[in-house]
Amino acid sequence: MDVRFINPFITAVQHVFTTMLKTEIIISKPYLKSEDDRNTDVSAIIGFTGGAVGSVALCFPLRSAIATASKFAGVELSKDDADFADALGELANMVAGQAKAKLHGLNISVSLPRVVVGEKLNVLNSKQQPVLGLPCDSALGRFAVEVAMKVVQGAVAPEPAAAAS
Amino acid sequence: MDVRFINPFITAVQHVFTTMLKTEIIISKPYLKSEDDRNTDVSAIIGFTGGAVGSVALCFPLRSAIATASKFAGVELSKDDADFADALGELANMVAGQAKAKLHGLNISVSLPRVVVGEKLNVLNSKQQPVLGLPCDSALGRFAVEVAMKVVQGAVAPEPAAAAS
Repeated sequence: MDVRFINPFITAVQHVFTTMLKTEIIISKPYLKSEDDRNTDVSAIIGFTGGAVGSVALCFPLRSAIATASKFAGVELSKDDADFADALGELANMVAGQAKAKLHGLNISVSLPRVVVGEKLNVLNSKQQPVLGLPCDSALGRFAVEVAMKVVQGAVAPEPAAAAS
Repeated sequence: MDVRFINPFITAVQHVFTTMLKTEIIISKPYLKSEDDRNTDVSAIIGFTGGAVGSVALCFPLRSAIATASKFAGVELSKDDADFADALGELANMVAGQAKAKLHGLNISVSLPRVVVGEKLNVLNSKQQPVLGLPCDSALGRFAVEVAMKVVQGAVAPEPAAAAS
């Protein structure tokens, strides 16, 4: 996946965490997701369509998911609260929405999020479609933003952007 | 959710299972999904956008997921095979694609599928958005098709269709 397409997701995550969660976030070097990565207990997944088709998955260990959802809702939540999935789904929606705005040449539309809660989840994708992971770290704990994206032939790519730190 | 919107999903599931899996499928009365439903070990999730925004999740107990993916691939698969997630993701894609064709007035586009593998998953949605479940039964085992869908204001609804059995 081209840096022009991953940078909008990096800035989207930073923007959403700083503005909505008042939380500084450190995003490390993106990695190509392998199937053996099972540090996920909760995944908020949202699809998108348009000049690029794909999906974004926010993948949390349980502890980070609870801290993040609680901070978002402004009250302590457990994973069984109805607001828990709502908060994480809304975060996924905001990250995709922010990235969409940055990828405006691609005319992206965002679907509705689903939040899967379990233990040691394996979040998989078509093997033809590589998934880029952004390792994220903050006071709320670690998580990853996983992006799978296929640019539709003939769609206009955004201008190359400076890489986020 | 209106019957006009759920029937296209019923006929889509029937069409995909009969043609792609050569498997007769019985779909029982749709239900409003409650949060306590945890009979899912594998979920293939795909979003859609357009005149209606939402997502479809095929939710399988492990045994049905393995039987279905193996039948689709034409070889015995385990949940750790790369083709396992591919097969179920492709099935989700076909179900959404068939439903999209039946909902043509709504100009729907389908995103890329994600497949989540775990144990006793809770597949959640925004609490503002009800999820309709279609209980499905076949020689490959039980599963459910869960549909969350919001019609965008002003979008043209399809003509009422006769209810599928």
